[in-house]
Amino acid sequence: MVELRSYLAGQWNSGSGDDITLFNPADASSYATVRRAGGLAHALAYARSTAGPTLRELTFAQRGACLEAMAKTIHGEREALIAIAIANGGNTRGDAKFDIDGATAVLATYAEIARDLGDTKWLVEDEPHALFHGAKLRAQHIRLPRHGVAIHINAFNFPAWGMIGKAAVSLLAGMPVLTKPGTSSAALAHRIVELLVEQQVLPAGALQLLMGPAGDLLEHTCPQDVVAFTGSAATGRRIRTHDRVIEAGVRVNVEADSLNAVVIGPDVARGSELFDALVRDCTVEITQKAGQKCTAIRRIIAPLTLIEDLREVLVERLEDMAAKTGDPADQANRMGPLATAQQLADAREGVRQLATRAKRMYGDLERTDFRGEATQRGYFLEPLLFQASPEAAADPSAPFHNTEVFGPVATLLPYDGSAEQAAQLVAAGGGSLVSTVYSDDRAFVLHTICNAGPHLGRLVVAQEKMARASLPPGGVFAVANHGGPGRAGGGEELGGRHGLALYTQRLALQTAGSQLARLVGG
Amino acid sequence: MVELRSYLAGQWNSGSGDDITLFNPADASSYATVRRAGGLAHALAYARSTAGPTLRELTFAQRGACLEAMAKTIHGEREALIAIAIANGGNTRGDAKFDIDGATAVLATYAEIARDLGDTKWLVEDEPHALFHGAKLRAQHIRLPRHGVAIHINAFNFPAWGMIGKAAVSLLAGMPVLTKPGTSSAALAHRIVELLVEQQVLPAGALQLLMGPAGDLLEHTCPQDVVAFTGSAATGRRIRTHDRVIEAGVRVNVEADSLNAVVIGPDVARGSELFDALVRDCTVEITQKAGQKCTAIRRIIAPLTLIEDLREVLVERLEDMAAKTGDPADQANRMGPLATAQQLADAREGVRQLATRAKRMYGDLERTDFRGEATQRGYFLEPLLFQASPEAAADPSAPFHNTEVFGPVATLLPYDGSAEQAAQLVAAGGGSLVSTVYSDDRAFVLHTICNAGPHLGRLVVAQEKMARASLPPGGVFAVANHGGPGRAGGGEELGGRHGLALYTQRLALQTAGSQLARLVGG
Repeated sequence: MVELRSYLAGQWNSGSGDDITLFNPADASSYATVRRAGGLAHALAYARSTAGPTLRELTFAQRGACLEAMAKTIHGEREALIAIAIANGGNTRGDAKFDIDGATAVLATYAEIARDLGDTKWLVEDEPHALFHGAKLRAQHIRLPRHGVAIHINAFNFPAWGMIGKAAVSLLAGMPVLTKPGTSSAALAHRIVELLVEQQVLPAGALQLLMGPAGDLLEHTCPQDVVAFTGSAATGRRIRTHDRVIEAGVRVNVEADSLNAVVIGPDVARGSELFDALVRDCTVEITQKAGQKCTAIRRIIAPLTLIEDLREVLVERLEDMAAKTGDPADQANRMGPLATAQQLADAREGVRQLATRAKRMYGDLERTDFRGEATQRGYFLEPLLFQASPEAAADPSAPFHNTEVFGPVATLLPYDGSAEQAAQLVAAGGGSLVSTVYSDDRAFVLHTICNAGPHLGRLVVAQEKMARASLPPGGVFAVANHGGPGRAGGGEELGGRHGLALYTQRLALQTAGSQLARLVGG
Repeated sequence: MVELRSYLAGQWNSGSGDDITLFNPADASSYATVRRAGGLAHALAYARSTAGPTLRELTFAQRGACLEAMAKTIHGEREALIAIAIANGGNTRGDAKFDIDGATAVLATYAEIARDLGDTKWLVEDEPHALFHGAKLRAQHIRLPRHGVAIHINAFNFPAWGMIGKAAVSLLAGMPVLTKPGTSSAALAHRIVELLVEQQVLPAGALQLLMGPAGDLLEHTCPQDVVAFTGSAATGRRIRTHDRVIEAGVRVNVEADSLNAVVIGPDVARGSELFDALVRDCTVEITQKAGQKCTAIRRIIAPLTLIEDLREVLVERLEDMAAKTGDPADQANRMGPLATAQQLADAREGVRQLATRAKRMYGDLERTDFRGEATQRGYFLEPLLFQASPEAAADPSAPFHNTEVFGPVATLLPYDGSAEQAAQLVAAGGGSLVSTVYSDDRAFVLHTICNAGPHLGRLVVAQEKMARASLPPGGVFAVANHGGPGRAGGGEELGGRHGLALYTQRLALQTAGSQLARLVGG
């Protein structure tokens, strides 16, 4: 079986100790192995001493050229990468393209931002401001690349997009990256780094790859390092409270659990294009990547007057998807398995919790026969839909507001049609990444922005006129903020230029106005 | 003796349990008492349910009018407040004005920002960006007030400015405040809140005051709350890793220890105006508030060729200040005592650590006779100056790079005159709030910006031409960022509009461009 090695300090490193096996989740067959890598202190020091200074010497435009080269390299091997995503990630072809083309797209967006920033090396945040009325002394804010390593600890669900999305922003900001993919699906991330190393598109040390467990990585962090983590709240908590991370004051960004809710306005009628769009969005966001997306729809907040109609149509769609769930290598199948046996066990446990406060409207938790999957050993779960009573829906302690089931599972939550209650139900999630409001009622939409908005990182507004052209909310575009408050981790990533903040230090330059003009403007 | 009560949920609350005594640090006489307040869960809930919605209903301009009223109220009682700062804070009259007028100034700055923001309720961060090339769907970022309480835990050294600086920004952002002053000097903060309550300048619940210990305050935090803390790294760590804070994903901003360094360029000559300015700055920053400022100069990085001259002049100035150290109620005295017996003990311990790697050039650690202080029970410490060898200065583990002695103490650190070494010495502090570079050498200044800058939150550039008009770096103006990476806590406060970020949630609004224009622009 193939061994996937780490790439640290300019060398492929096969690590030591026991083999850790990566599987094909469709049939639980072994796919590859990794071993625990050592020398992590050296790898971090190598990045700080070699790639850091090199990247900081480059202008934004030059760093952007590196991103373009990365995009070209990845796109050039698209078919081979899709095959890996199917075999090791349990992705359908559509899922795989979503991940891999997402990686290419984020590189393209940041390459464009790089062109706009041009031949400069720092970001200028504002105009000079007088320290006090009539003062010649002024303050102006710039942002400079931090002199450390960007440590990226990624989730298993987007081995391409997750890794490259974080790396693109760090590299453009001028920080070298050490990236650790989620182990179970890491073959795709590994192949991408292998291609980038082969093609030599980046300065030495600018992108290092750690396969397998993080080991003692965080013990070696320094005050100028950044840790960006995507994954469970439990692991996020361990990183945030890690002794050395706290001691050194390492900057940490966390994107964790999220019970994303969509809000359907009281004005939406069955048969409207907006109704069709929301049914389409819900179906995609429940089943794409078998629901293993941080931005998947978990809660569907619908007016009592519409909820029966909506459930009826949604059940039809999920029934259709359930029939097309199976071996992702077969293009006729629309949904594949979960990533690991543990993910399947966790999802089943979560579903059992949901069932204590909501009624199952569709889906069989114990189903084992899936299309083209003769072994019955794959980690499949068919789509499940729950529905809560109005009383249960209004209870912030109910499991559908608190337990992220990382699979193809959502809950219908009825509300009274008022913007106030809709916002309360969104807020009951304790902070989420994204929501959509489906409505043409301007007052309803404005209320949702102001009252659900503070609990979110992104809000999609869908309206009848643009319903056909709308996109499901789970698609993350690099120009928009990705992150959410509270349970979602409190992080902020992407969002165009805003994303560069994580990897740069704000510096107030304070001096005479004329001097500022020479230093910053010149 | 007067009892200083908390102001919680619209009522003065005398608490329970043992008296905690506040002293006059000049003679260790008792000044006032406080007791531990209960009902903190209720106080937080009260702010969330009453003041939060009220503040969010106001426009920025209306919130700014509240800030103006606060400034007027404080300025109107300036003399009485100065008297309290002298008696309970050990402030000289100059120290007291620095604190109290600083509070008025930050209110004025944010009132002006409020006028610029005008009749709006959210911040618009950027222009709409197309999700992808040619898309009609766009994303635009706004910031909305968080639906929680801004919990401010302040240090003892600036009871007026510290409290009001944080409160001004939160209130303008639309978040109610619960503020906890450092207990030892809390009489000034207490009187300010009392005045603001008497004058009814703020909506009910918008500003609550917790005297004495924080108790179980953090146990009752919610995901939309913000904790902004100024104080020791040890307490900062306890807040950051607090179970409930982590569990709820409460946003935390920390401003902690800082070994601020100034850098003297190789081009600065004795006798120049720039030399005079740096001597003046060092003297002020060592002795103002008896060195109890987070922005005080702790490390003076000077070229080997200049260091003897600089030491000679600095020792003269400190000698002069030492002779004028004593009872702060006497306006002839220029420096008062430290805040508490514990602060004095800690400072002495820190000085003993410095003495292991640097030579004492001025100051007597054990001196007990100070001007006008007959009891010899006051918490006085005369100014102390240390000097390190070039070898010791270059060692990042040396105590002067790591131990913040919170008193009138600084260390001269020689360097070879290269911008590279100067930046390395700044960086050895592990992240600081502020630095000044004194130089007219453009290349030296640019190198310092790029290489010392990422370790700082603010950098003052002082040059010969503007030397007479320059201001010591320890003065914090509300238009400039206040905070620093690493050891300094990684926080960002003030900085004009940037400061509003802490109390608001970034929301990417994603919809058709025409819809965005109607919602955001309209």
